[in-house]
Amino acid sequence: MMGRGLLGIEDLDRDDIELILETAAHMKEVGERDVKKVPTLRGRTIINLFFESSTRTRTSFEIAGKRLSADVVNFSPSSSSLSKSESIIDTAKTLDAMDPDAVVVRHKVAGVPKRIADELEAPVINAGDGAHEHPTQALLDLMTVVEKKGRADGLTVTIVGDIAHSRVARSNIYAFTKMGAEVRVAGPPTMLPANVESLGVKAFGSLREAIDGADVVMALRIQRERLSGAIMPSVREYHATFGVDRAKLRFAKEDAIVMHPGPVNRGVELSHDLTDHRPSVILDQVRNGVALRMAVLYLLAGRPQPRPTEEEDS
Amino acid sequence: MMGRGLLGIEDLDRDDIELILETAAHMKEVGERDVKKVPTLRGRTIINLFFESSTRTRTSFEIAGKRLSADVVNFSPSSSSLSKSESIIDTAKTLDAMDPDAVVVRHKVAGVPKRIADELEAPVINAGDGAHEHPTQALLDLMTVVEKKGRADGLTVTIVGDIAHSRVARSNIYAFTKMGAEVRVAGPPTMLPANVESLGVKAFGSLREAIDGADVVMALRIQRERLSGAIMPSVREYHATFGVDRAKLRFAKEDAIVMHPGPVNRGVELSHDLTDHRPSVILDQVRNGVALRMAVLYLLAGRPQPRPTEEEDS
Amino acid sequence: MMGRGLLGIEDLDRDDIELILETAAHMKEVGERDVKKVPTLRGRTIINLFFESSTRTRTSFEIAGKRLSADVVNFSPSSSSLSKSESIIDTAKTLDAMDPDAVVVRHKVAGVPKRIADELEAPVINAGDGAHEHPTQALLDLMTVVEKKGRADGLTVTIVGDIAHSRVARSNIYAFTKMGAEVRVAGPPTMLPANVESLGVKAFGSLREAIDGADVVMALRIQRERLSGAIMPSVREYHATFGVDRAKLRFAKEDAIVMHPGPVNRGVELSHDLTDHRPSVILDQVRNGVALRMAVLYLLAGRPQPRPTEEEDS
Repeated sequence: MMGRGLLGIEDLDRDDIELILETAAHMKEVGERDVKKVPTLRGRTIINLFFESSTRTRTSFEIAGKRLSADVVNFSPSSSSLSKSESIIDTAKTLDAMDPDAVVVRHKVAGVPKRIADELEAPVINAGDGAHEHPTQALLDLMTVVEKKGRADGLTVTIVGDIAHSRVARSNIYAFTKMGAEVRVAGPPTMLPANVESLGVKAFGSLREAIDGADVVMALRIQRERLSGAIMPSVREYHATFGVDRAKLRFAKEDAIVMHPGPVNRGVELSHDLTDHRPSVILDQVRNGVALRMAVLYLLAGRPQPRPTEEEDS
Repeated sequence: MMGRGLLGIEDLDRDDIELILETAAHMKEVGERDVKKVPTLRGRTIINLFFESSTRTRTSFEIAGKRLSADVVNFSPSSSSLSKSESIIDTAKTLDAMDPDAVVVRHKVAGVPKRIADELEAPVINAGDGAHEHPTQALLDLMTVVEKKGRADGLTVTIVGDIAHSRVARSNIYAFTKMGAEVRVAGPPTMLPANVESLGVKAFGSLREAIDGADVVMALRIQRERLSGAIMPSVREYHATFGVDRAKLRFAKEDAIVMHPGPVNRGVELSHDLTDHRPSVILDQVRNGVALRMAVLYLLAGRPQPRPTEEEDS
Repeated sequence: MMGRGLLGIEDLDRDDIELILETAAHMKEVGERDVKKVPTLRGRTIINLFFESSTRTRTSFEIAGKRLSADVVNFSPSSSSLSKSESIIDTAKTLDAMDPDAVVVRHKVAGVPKRIADELEAPVINAGDGAHEHPTQALLDLMTVVEKKGRADGLTVTIVGDIAHSRVARSNIYAFTKMGAEVRVAGPPTMLPANVESLGVKAFGSLREAIDGADVVMALRIQRERLSGAIMPSVREYHATFGVDRAKLRFAKEDAIVMHPGPVNRGVELSHDLTDHRPSVILDQVRNGVALRMAVLYLLAGRPQPRPTEEEDS
């Protein structure tokens, strides 16, 4: 089981992941009904505690919670007033005293959700922390692959981009290797972490080689400011070398799918054409994101939570 | 019928407008109950996608959606991160993949709601786009007039202010002319569009003449920065010439009403006295706004929406 | 009774306070259920009108409203666009026309909630106005004391800090004196108002004396910028003189509790140790805050509200 929160895919075993995916498939069916709502979390409170702004992920969690009939409260402290980590923990403990049933945390610093989880009664869901993990993104990616391919086991998954600085890459590496896929990563040398093969993946300096025979090609969002410098001087050059387009895709399996966590820098990570059309499945990822987050909220906030007793030391 | 959204009054015919007004009258009755809520849109999701900040209109739509038991999600991207229209469409398509039942869009550029509507499964409601249209404002104005006067047909409606730059004026011109009213517009020459009479209205350079025998006097909000310049050098001069006060109102019909979309620049578009007292009906307009938006949401989001199928090209 | 709103503790009598505390105790029991929600305010609308940002208090009211099944709408106008008080009233009247059942107001200027209340149909709850009052904070403090001590009557309550600029101090002085407690205040001379003893309290320049035999020690949050100057030159010196720590606490009653409205400047108003551990009851205050605000919302928004009639002068 997931224990008392979802901080990273690294902590999950294959059974956890399968339970989440099965639950998510059921939740997706709810989202296709005329009345897209179940009373499962009625009377439960979910707090979206986003220290880093992310309207897309926050909206996905908010819609997920509301479709489960939870009360969802958004709390986005200005980062200026909370620069010291001490304040972060105090803020989280204050919210915890309002008895939420789950707290969804995003922060630009790796490890903050874990530090918060250590102090809280409520289960904590990591919605992205620095370059560490973004577990619900990896789970929705996995869900989408399983939906399209029937399984993850035995597939070849190529992740291309700034592997070193990407929590999406990290969580997906854990998720797909745990589920039996072969994971390859590709990117410019400055964007490949030195020890990446210790995570059980194969690293490539060439997308052409990495894509060879792949079932899934996942492009990561590039921070344009990282492209300045001698090795990869321009967006144009990045696209020529590591951008996914139909020409490069010819080396993948014929039925390969293309993924991206969004938002896409069109013409950079993906050609314009691939951003909008099959075999890219970007909007399926978004749609599955709501179902997947419903599943995670259900599994974590749906069970009776222990309440701190009156006399307990605070 | 309204088709798949509400982008402007220009697209509606008289039957559409009458259906909306009848529905709004019913919704207003709901708002007067002790429990101001009906289960009509339970399990439906409404997204308020406001690229331009507008707490008043956003709040009106939010309350309207909640009184219909819909889940309402506010999404206000910072305009800086979405300066390119490409991003706007991608953002909207991402939200669409979360299966909302209606998306309410405000943007400072005319035509953006239409461009978004062309790409989305969900019906789009224009909550104001540049100087183009603000259809729900015009409909709530029409609702208020019909409530006070029993009809719009045959009435004389005088709109005064910056006609050229006002989406409220444009939508109201369409709405009242379609319903059989005589519409007059008045303002300084720089604020009257050259071709305004082609919209079926009479243009006046003098408020005194335009107001003569009017049943309804509608003042528009002035952007103070537009008043600088030779022709209309000051707020004080604007008020003297085009501000509505009791002296000028004596030329209108005895039972004329005064309207304003709010917020009023007191002592500019309206005298202080008229801002707060009859015959102005400003707060009735606001109150009817909630009922009118309930009607529009009910008509657009209340019917089963087709869902994109799994295999459809995205 | 509380009349048509809750603007300050000064306006309440002992019966009002006891009714609120009894109702809050019941609401707290709701918050301890598995389904933390009652249908009491279904179909009622609560608007959080926060001119001054306060995510903690706003969140507490939002959760309180949602646990009563009310629709809660957050409205936070940028203070820049509303610098003139005229606009504030117009904004409030506009929201009032949307028929809310309660409006919760925070503003940095004392008296604004009262001015708004004078104009609105809906009951107004003051969520903090300048250095005037913060009544729900004092009531939740009182609730916490009664919960821990069985009563307020006959207790000695010491409030330490910037009494002169604190709405929390002011509201608590009213609340505890009305309930029969002896209230003492302590702080540097610049932070003690000249006429403070006219409020029925004893003033001390020394925490050591003020704390002697106290049942409750309440530290206030210090604005660090107020500490610059000759009399109290540094945070360190403030803590040495007026910060509450275990050494100073030895002069209070053995079972004394320590309170703080939060957020704590750790090591300034309270020692680090006391911030996190008994006898401080800071998180109990936060938890009781939700129950207390449920009680206030229930008492004010739960009864049928008169609606303005159609023809009434606006």
